[in-house]
Amino acid sequence: MAETKSYIAGLYCSRCGKGHSHEIAAHLCDCGSPLLVRYDLERARSELDRNSLRDRSPDLWRYRELLPVEREENIVSLGEGFTPLLPLRRAGASLDIDLLYIKDESVIPTGTFKARGAAVGVSKAKELGVGTLIMPTNGNAGAAWALYGARASLDVKIIMPEDAPYIARAECSAGGADLYLVKGLISDCGKIAARAVAKHGWYDVSTLKEPYRIEGKKTMGYEIAEQLGWRSPDVVLYPTGGGVGIIGVYKAFLEMRELGWISDKPPRLVAVQADGCAPIVKAFAEKKTQSEFWENSRTIAFGINVPRALGDFLVLDAIYSTNGTAVSIDDDTIVASQVELGRQEGTFVCPEGASLYAAAKRLREDGWIRRDDTVVLLNTGAGIKYPDTLSFAPPYLEMDAEL
Amino acid sequence: MAETKSYIAGLYCSRCGKGHSHEIAAHLCDCGSPLLVRYDLERARSELDRNSLRDRSPDLWRYRELLPVEREENIVSLGEGFTPLLPLRRAGASLDIDLLYIKDESVIPTGTFKARGAAVGVSKAKELGVGTLIMPTNGNAGAAWALYGARASLDVKIIMPEDAPYIARAECSAGGADLYLVKGLISDCGKIAARAVAKHGWYDVSTLKEPYRIEGKKTMGYEIAEQLGWRSPDVVLYPTGGGVGIIGVYKAFLEMRELGWISDKPPRLVAVQADGCAPIVKAFAEKKTQSEFWENSRTIAFGINVPRALGDFLVLDAIYSTNGTAVSIDDDTIVASQVELGRQEGTFVCPEGASLYAAAKRLREDGWIRRDDTVVLLNTGAGIKYPDTLSFAPPYLEMDAEL
Repeated sequence: MAETKSYIAGLYCSRCGKGHSHEIAAHLCDCGSPLLVRYDLERARSELDRNSLRDRSPDLWRYRELLPVEREENIVSLGEGFTPLLPLRRAGASLDIDLLYIKDESVIPTGTFKARGAAVGVSKAKELGVGTLIMPTNGNAGAAWALYGARASLDVKIIMPEDAPYIARAECSAGGADLYLVKGLISDCGKIAARAVAKHGWYDVSTLKEPYRIEGKKTMGYEIAEQLGWRSPDVVLYPTGGGVGIIGVYKAFLEMRELGWISDKPPRLVAVQADGCAPIVKAFAEKKTQSEFWENSRTIAFGINVPRALGDFLVLDAIYSTNGTAVSIDDDTIVASQVELGRQEGTFVCPEGASLYAAAKRLREDGWIRRDDTVVLLNTGAGIKYPDTLSFAPPYLEMDAEL
Repeated sequence: MAETKSYIAGLYCSRCGKGHSHEIAAHLCDCGSPLLVRYDLERARSELDRNSLRDRSPDLWRYRELLPVEREENIVSLGEGFTPLLPLRRAGASLDIDLLYIKDESVIPTGTFKARGAAVGVSKAKELGVGTLIMPTNGNAGAAWALYGARASLDVKIIMPEDAPYIARAECSAGGADLYLVKGLISDCGKIAARAVAKHGWYDVSTLKEPYRIEGKKTMGYEIAEQLGWRSPDVVLYPTGGGVGIIGVYKAFLEMRELGWISDKPPRLVAVQADGCAPIVKAFAEKKTQSEFWENSRTIAFGINVPRALGDFLVLDAIYSTNGTAVSIDDDTIVASQVELGRQEGTFVCPEGASLYAAAKRLREDGWIRRDDTVVLLNTGAGIKYPDTLSFAPPYLEMDAEL
């Protein structure tokens, strides 16, 4: 029954600032906005030396003091985190960027960064005594929560659009979750989930409707800094759907400065969306602080097909505060980038990740990225989860063929 | 142009013992048998402290002195290795095994353990100045060599049966390899490849026809020992097709003893095959030292559909020398085990990996595995690479549905 020495100090509303307890199940603030976790960073600064991490296991729990789980026996882990930060030398040369990296979230259980949110979210749900959780999802998050939920012996209900990637269904099935399909969008799934939550009191783990998923995602920021020798890169590009990842990465860099672990400014954050679903890009272009619902959204990059995110104002704040930007890419260019990156670097990234390469190229051409900037592409998942994105028709050989 | 301080000392024939040079491209011995790498372990023992590994990056290159690459600039890496060794508490309880682990090779670039062989094999090919490599494959190895080959700027030719898993084609395409399909078996692909090698002088990376792939695979053994605090488990179960993995793991444990890094005996090695393709199991049952070609082989666990392995005598030697055993499992039980493991532990393993759970269950029931044995299931890949193995039909919900 060991304590993990979390410095968690409470929850606060990301919009109105009101405090909330982290010791009971909490979802949105009374004002309707997401809750975030606050830590006693002052105490952590004086007690916790970043060099003490060096001997820890290479997973996200190496940052356990800055995660919300208070008792070690509640940690539900499949070995997630500390994914590779790979130099992209040839791609960097072709883009005229000296130091280009990919943070590769394909090398993680369930094959996408959703594993981080699920690991920390499910662990905290277990700590809070949750029995049943429910989630509307575009696929990968549901897959991750189904499998981590199985490891925690929780009942998991997943509602998914029928168009969501097929492989995610197999993962839900493997985890024994109750999976339901809807002929509609994730927003339609969300309405059904909301009614079920009201009726049964199930624990709602919709994006940003519980405060702990983002804590898992923020560890990407901690890892990038640690892997660069406790430095901030100049630019991080992030494929932006619900926005939890980019909000989390921003939170991580702010926390690390308060901890005295980095002295640099946070990186300039770039939200990358698809031309067919670009509410954040539009809001940024119009200098607004929140986005509008994007009608008839459509992109092959299914994970960023989110017409309006509950945390849009937090995403925009992260961009404005870091002197970042927002760009959108068309689907043909996304697929072409997936191939270009694979052939140059051997990385088979998901379409969401591929959009970042095209975005970096455009921003470098514009001069927004400088040659000597250290640039990180945050690839959120494995290309193998979307085997139908690429089209190819390999030739057949006869038994007596000569090459 | 830094040296990596590899202790490589040469190659030797695994059957007749004849020495060969590691400084030129080498394939089989004149006697037709695979070559293995020899290291100067005596010198390594006196110079290399296992504790010096602690600060190294969490990938297989942490064992670089015991790998064949001599110059650091030849290392071709996508961040592979140091995969999770996860405790399986509920599965262990249901099997009545106190300490059951899974070594999870789904958390690696390309989603299977083939990444290890490709990383080390491609790196050494680069070091040897290879321009074009060719490989017949059941899918996952080809995918891995295509992507690592791309990262090394090599020309890669892959020949695959049309029945091989579809996702592997997408990976070859992403890496820009020349992919060919054959209406036949991997042995048919191998014949076409052999003619092309004879004609063009391409570098043949068929299973065990080059000596370095096994060096990548052996790192699984090093990692298991390091992750257990430099101890041998009592039993390692391994899904056995071409056999490179089990031969590599055995080699690792022998080397670690010579290095003084472990004092235990090597683990008892268990080769697990499918009922529909079990040449090693049959040979073991008949106390033979090599296997016979298995006619009309057939199993959903495509990676272990290998009717006869070139290294069969080495696999059998590893089993006999460690007091191991060999068992085969039927396909229905493999699928049932995949589901059982997923629901109990949240791991979505490949069918090959699932066979190990069934094998451990049978061996525990027989008393061959004891309750207090430390047992490792070596799951060779991600279930998401085989999305069609599981059958499921999730219900549809109407927009106004109530759960």
